[in-house]
Amino acid sequence: MHAFLLEPVVRAALLEDLSHGTDLTTDAIAGADQRATAHIVARSAGTIYGHGCARAAFTLLDSGSEYTAHVPDGGTASGDQRVATISARARAVLTAERTALNFLCRLSGIATATRALADLVAEYPARVIDTRKTTPGLRALEKAAVLAGGGANHRFGLDDGVLIKDNHIAVAGSISAAVAAVRKHTGHMVKIEVEVDTLGQLREALELNIDAVLLDNMPPEQLREAVQLVAGRVVTEASGGITPQRIASVAATGVDLISVGWITHSAPALDLGLDITL
Amino acid sequence: MHAFLLEPVVRAALLEDLSHGTDLTTDAIAGADQRATAHIVARSAGTIYGHGCARAAFTLLDSGSEYTAHVPDGGTASGDQRVATISARARAVLTAERTALNFLCRLSGIATATRALADLVAEYPARVIDTRKTTPGLRALEKAAVLAGGGANHRFGLDDGVLIKDNHIAVAGSISAAVAAVRKHTGHMVKIEVEVDTLGQLREALELNIDAVLLDNMPPEQLREAVQLVAGRVVTEASGGITPQRIASVAATGVDLISVGWITHSAPALDLGLDITL
Amino acid sequence: MHAFLLEPVVRAALLEDLSHGTDLTTDAIAGADQRATAHIVARSAGTIYGHGCARAAFTLLDSGSEYTAHVPDGGTASGDQRVATISARARAVLTAERTALNFLCRLSGIATATRALADLVAEYPARVIDTRKTTPGLRALEKAAVLAGGGANHRFGLDDGVLIKDNHIAVAGSISAAVAAVRKHTGHMVKIEVEVDTLGQLREALELNIDAVLLDNMPPEQLREAVQLVAGRVVTEASGGITPQRIASVAATGVDLISVGWITHSAPALDLGLDITL
Amino acid sequence: MHAFLLEPVVRAALLEDLSHGTDLTTDAIAGADQRATAHIVARSAGTIYGHGCARAAFTLLDSGSEYTAHVPDGGTASGDQRVATISARARAVLTAERTALNFLCRLSGIATATRALADLVAEYPARVIDTRKTTPGLRALEKAAVLAGGGANHRFGLDDGVLIKDNHIAVAGSISAAVAAVRKHTGHMVKIEVEVDTLGQLREALELNIDAVLLDNMPPEQLREAVQLVAGRVVTEASGGITPQRIASVAATGVDLISVGWITHSAPALDLGLDITL
Amino acid sequence: MHAFLLEPVVRAALLEDLSHGTDLTTDAIAGADQRATAHIVARSAGTIYGHGCARAAFTLLDSGSEYTAHVPDGGTASGDQRVATISARARAVLTAERTALNFLCRLSGIATATRALADLVAEYPARVIDTRKTTPGLRALEKAAVLAGGGANHRFGLDDGVLIKDNHIAVAGSISAAVAAVRKHTGHMVKIEVEVDTLGQLREALELNIDAVLLDNMPPEQLREAVQLVAGRVVTEASGGITPQRIASVAATGVDLISVGWITHSAPALDLGLDITL
Amino acid sequence: MHAFLLEPVVRAALLEDLSHGTDLTTDAIAGADQRATAHIVARSAGTIYGHGCARAAFTLLDSGSEYTAHVPDGGTASGDQRVATISARARAVLTAERTALNFLCRLSGIATATRALADLVAEYPARVIDTRKTTPGLRALEKAAVLAGGGANHRFGLDDGVLIKDNHIAVAGSISAAVAAVRKHTGHMVKIEVEVDTLGQLREALELNIDAVLLDNMPPEQLREAVQLVAGRVVTEASGGITPQRIASVAATGVDLISVGWITHSAPALDLGLDITL
Repeated sequence: MHAFLLEPVVRAALLEDLSHGTDLTTDAIAGADQRATAHIVARSAGTIYGHGCARAAFTLLDSGSEYTAHVPDGGTASGDQRVATISARARAVLTAERTALNFLCRLSGIATATRALADLVAEYPARVIDTRKTTPGLRALEKAAVLAGGGANHRFGLDDGVLIKDNHIAVAGSISAAVAAVRKHTGHMVKIEVEVDTLGQLREALELNIDAVLLDNMPPEQLREAVQLVAGRVVTEASGGITPQRIASVAATGVDLISVGWITHSAPALDLGLDITL
Repeated sequence: MHAFLLEPVVRAALLEDLSHGTDLTTDAIAGADQRATAHIVARSAGTIYGHGCARAAFTLLDSGSEYTAHVPDGGTASGDQRVATISARARAVLTAERTALNFLCRLSGIATATRALADLVAEYPARVIDTRKTTPGLRALEKAAVLAGGGANHRFGLDDGVLIKDNHIAVAGSISAAVAAVRKHTGHMVKIEVEVDTLGQLREALELNIDAVLLDNMPPEQLREAVQLVAGRVVTEASGGITPQRIASVAATGVDLISVGWITHSAPALDLGLDITL
Repeated sequence: MHAFLLEPVVRAALLEDLSHGTDLTTDAIAGADQRATAHIVARSAGTIYGHGCARAAFTLLDSGSEYTAHVPDGGTASGDQRVATISARARAVLTAERTALNFLCRLSGIATATRALADLVAEYPARVIDTRKTTPGLRALEKAAVLAGGGANHRFGLDDGVLIKDNHIAVAGSISAAVAAVRKHTGHMVKIEVEVDTLGQLREALELNIDAVLLDNMPPEQLREAVQLVAGRVVTEASGGITPQRIASVAATGVDLISVGWITHSAPALDLGLDITL
Repeated sequence: MHAFLLEPVVRAALLEDLSHGTDLTTDAIAGADQRATAHIVARSAGTIYGHGCARAAFTLLDSGSEYTAHVPDGGTASGDQRVATISARARAVLTAERTALNFLCRLSGIATATRALADLVAEYPARVIDTRKTTPGLRALEKAAVLAGGGANHRFGLDDGVLIKDNHIAVAGSISAAVAAVRKHTGHMVKIEVEVDTLGQLREALELNIDAVLLDNMPPEQLREAVQLVAGRVVTEASGGITPQRIASVAATGVDLISVGWITHSAPALDLGLDITL
Repeated sequence: MHAFLLEPVVRAALLEDLSHGTDLTTDAIAGADQRATAHIVARSAGTIYGHGCARAAFTLLDSGSEYTAHVPDGGTASGDQRVATISARARAVLTAERTALNFLCRLSGIATATRALADLVAEYPARVIDTRKTTPGLRALEKAAVLAGGGANHRFGLDDGVLIKDNHIAVAGSISAAVAAVRKHTGHMVKIEVEVDTLGQLREALELNIDAVLLDNMPPEQLREAVQLVAGRVVTEASGGITPQRIASVAATGVDLISVGWITHSAPALDLGLDITL
Repeated sequence: MHAFLLEPVVRAALLEDLSHGTDLTTDAIAGADQRATAHIVARSAGTIYGHGCARAAFTLLDSGSEYTAHVPDGGTASGDQRVATISARARAVLTAERTALNFLCRLSGIATATRALADLVAEYPARVIDTRKTTPGLRALEKAAVLAGGGANHRFGLDDGVLIKDNHIAVAGSISAAVAAVRKHTGHMVKIEVEVDTLGQLREALELNIDAVLLDNMPPEQLREAVQLVAGRVVTEASGGITPQRIASVAATGVDLISVGWITHSAPALDLGLDITL
């Protein structure tokens, strides 16, 4: 992502530590002109994402910071591997350390979880995709982390694609009514996906010239039947209760996409630390 | 938290869905004046936090929204229990649904994880506390969620307390030098905590009239020895590798506080959904 | 559009008049508690859009303002027809007058221009659509005005659809290379449109399983040939040099869409005024 | 205008294209380190304004961008003349192209329209001036474009000059009452102008030691009479229904200023394009 | 000032106290629903200004706050007089107390200082006016406080009036060159004032058809001579080293205006306190 | 303070002068490329603070500005001593002059007032500390100025320390109840101070294991008695009516801290000017 998009987010994060203007510990201990070198090190193995944010954190505090990534965004670090090196004023290193790591650990956690799932379905055509179940304020970054982990992106927001879900169908009265309403109002660059819970709903949806179906909470055998019914006419997305244990069996049904909210809302952070050298 | 503090955060989250100005699906399907009632329901049991954010999401889209919490912040929901009810314009309900849930699920996940750990050490005096390993942009909310889960708060930022960590000691040259530097610059309302890795460091720190020690990555037997050495003179905080499996044995050493980064950086979201009724 | 999305834009506009804190003329002349009624009147006929912005301007200055639209958004006003009535503090009316009109006149100008073009092609299936040639800061509003005028929307930004233009093709080396690169990186909710200048390029594009083609600057006879070549397989968009004089002949070629930058970047403002009564 | 004043406006415009964080087309097609050169070319002749904004657009995306203006702000470009050259990362060129052009085309359109009117009255002392009928969010830029086109500026806002208009007179009860109220409240650096519709009002206003009169919607013969009545005592401004056809006859009446809302609210954009070379 | 202009300033001030989200003392002590009544009381006599800010502080924390001013803006409070009464949630009262008082005490200090000087020159035509030596971030409020204290306003910024100062004359080469340059670039609503240090400079300036002269650091006898030289042709402003002791002798010279930086940059705060009742 | 924290505050201050986009005087007089050198000179002696803000003001207008401090932050300038030298574009110097000085004069005024008080108690252990009676929007800067003047900082906000004041005690019912409530809710890094007005209250407070007492408005003899009562168990802070005349007698009582609201809310600005050379 372009640095000018990251800066406001990183600035806001730094302000959570510095809203009163001072790092009480660091400002007392480190001299204003003292320099330091530090290494960001993976404490466990995983896929890295977030160098742009980490770099921005140090640069905002010291415009002369040098930040070198050793494992690139999307690359995989082994345990104890150096992921990046920072050369900057000691105050900048110490004060920005936590902010930089908070971004890197969380985003790398997402990339790592995505990569793990992607690897589990590597032999199938199915791709792992994300959802809108992202952290408030960090959606664009988290979706970039999913890409870095080998996944693909679903919609970014409510404004770049139509997904007719159960609650919309309830309001519209039927799938057909919902699709008709949407088609009347949306432009030619907008794709339409419909969530279906049953094969009956799927049959109704397939009559409506849509682009994709979200097969929600269907067991593998039902998914397989759905995929056969679709017969390649629209994109098929499986969703609901996807676990590392289940994902291969879901992929084996032939669905095109498997969406997993878990990779953004519940992936554990990757364990990264910062070691300073003087 | 005061509503005026939540509003900018919730507004930013809504903008992730609406930056182009429109919910393509909802605006086509629901009439401008159509109203709806919806229930937020716990799909699994847990401790709830985040009603203020959820309420703000609906209110920003419909100032006439009514939001009633059935399980209060800090309360425990059983699986399938109604957590809140919203009465608002259908468009507001459908458009704000994901934003409201993204806040509620994440913050309730933190509260639930904290509560689980707190319950595991309930028979000991030790309290579970948080760290600065929070989500960028959400620290104040996540620390409030920790309180709601029965934990306590460590520092909020780098500006409201001194914690001299290993990297600071490396820069200062020694624990004593670091404490001396800090004491010279900080006011009378600032507490000083020092991270120690060994009993030797602990002995050095105890000579320095500090307020607390962070006993980092010590096994239970060493923690016990440290607690005896401290003998109540300063607050003791155990940190590093705390798991549900280990936490009781840590608490049994007699430490005052057990800090767990995991509850904010890696707690899985609580599973909550929204069911609409017309 | 939701009021919370309009408010920051309207606030910024009011600040252009009030950055030093005071309306020197009004604050001296009108009493703090004096009330006034005013009518927004169309000085010439046209399609109205922008009541949300006008209402917000008065409401920001007087939260007790009442704003009643007589001609709704998307409706057509005849010359000298009352479009809206405001009842508010006299200071709010006088101070917000220009801001409210600046929004209403510009957005209604866009709606009016769109409506005029849409009427000219009413007998053909072709729809008038907008472009990204919008006023900096007002894109979402201007695209809503296009909808109000009977047009449809193209992409909202660079982030919600793929349009491969001449400069992209130059960078990629060929249409095929560009489409291949895009297909590798974009999710299943993203449509792909390709700009072509010649029938040769069109044939190349049609091999690539894309969603739409932009037929740029083609004369009607070439457009007709292109439409026949496409034979309904993808959406066809004509673009370039569309004028009121030419648009019917373009529509007659059978294209699906006619995009017109002029309706957002050069449509004259609709002439509306505000008459106060005491 | 100082770059730090432009940056927030240009940033907001870029965000209209990139709110979800990515240019789906460009990011897939152009390599992160690929560079490009591009020329901004006038497709038709006109007066240029807006290089500061265009430069800022490229610079925000690539701080190493080089932007060279060939036709300076206020200069006149012939059709097909190169107006500026950009050397930057290909991604920055492609992503910022539309934003840069949206500013340049609109502001150059205003400069061109102003210049055309100014040329029509060049033989008279009258100057063409702007109004507050500007685009919400762009007033300072549009007023600078008017200067670049050879016009002059009226007030910038409601806070830097007094203009007593018909609605104010209605509220105050009379011109005299309005002027008296204003004089009591405003400082010595504030000029006072009064709008008059009749020669009777003009006579009343001239008794009041004001600085300027706005002669609203008067036909040339009445304007001439008004100018004679004023006899140089105050500045005279003609306003209302000024067209290229009429403006010379208005200037010939001897008025000092001719204000034209049209140059900011309805001037067509100047046609500029960007051609990339690799 | 309109409330929507005050809100961002007051919000920023509250955030200085609440950036970490919580009032540690109040939130622990006062119940969420507990209500309180409080009085703002003048501990010493003075002129009051700032109710809008104080009201906003309480309202942001409790939208149901009631704030009643007993001594209006611009009114004079005697020592120990109740200035305002607040009825709100106890938490809102306790948390907003300092913010509300910080605004009220500072702005009332300015109003009080202005009033004292204005009273000292009440028998002369001279008015006390402010300068641009205001507190960063609070200029509009401080200038309103000057008005409330019976003073008048000089320019609000660099953008609403021309004041040619010594450094400008140095850059331009002479007063005449500076005035000529300015006249060429500024519109008809802009007044021009020139700072002069000597009678020779004054004579040069008077030749140039300007609106006002700033007589800088002249002793009373020289001021008197300057006033005679001007003979009513332009506004005269005395400036430099104005003290309560000197101001009457300056006013006696016949100058129109006396500008005093001290009233905004160094006026002591008025002593106001808040007493809570339950 | 880190430059990235200062920039938004300085930017906001510059906008108070430039909200309409232009310095009418300077832009007309100084050429765009003309350069100038200027000196900031102390017109009277004092302690300097605020170079970061002054530098930022010039740098925002000309990124190539060079700003050299001759008297460092915290250093003392004699009357007529050069405090800093700026080399920049003439326009940047002239336009930013007032903003830079407004910061420097105010913050240096605070540093100077603090230094004066600190010197008066230099022979005693007591330190001069600040309060939350700071200028809205400038708290962090003003607290840094207090440090620069040899004082120390009290709390920064309501979120980094507990101070139980008279109004809290009124709400809680008693000092004991207030302390108990606070202790239940606050973390281990938070210090607790209690305000007492009488020796009886002091005795009650000393039973409660708190960290500090604020001895409010006690005459010296009572302060001395209080200090003896405390006997070193907690930090003692004297407050209320501290003047240069009284401060030594207060310090002589043996209190640890003397808090003075006056140094931030009422300290006169230090007189600094800017002299340009070409």
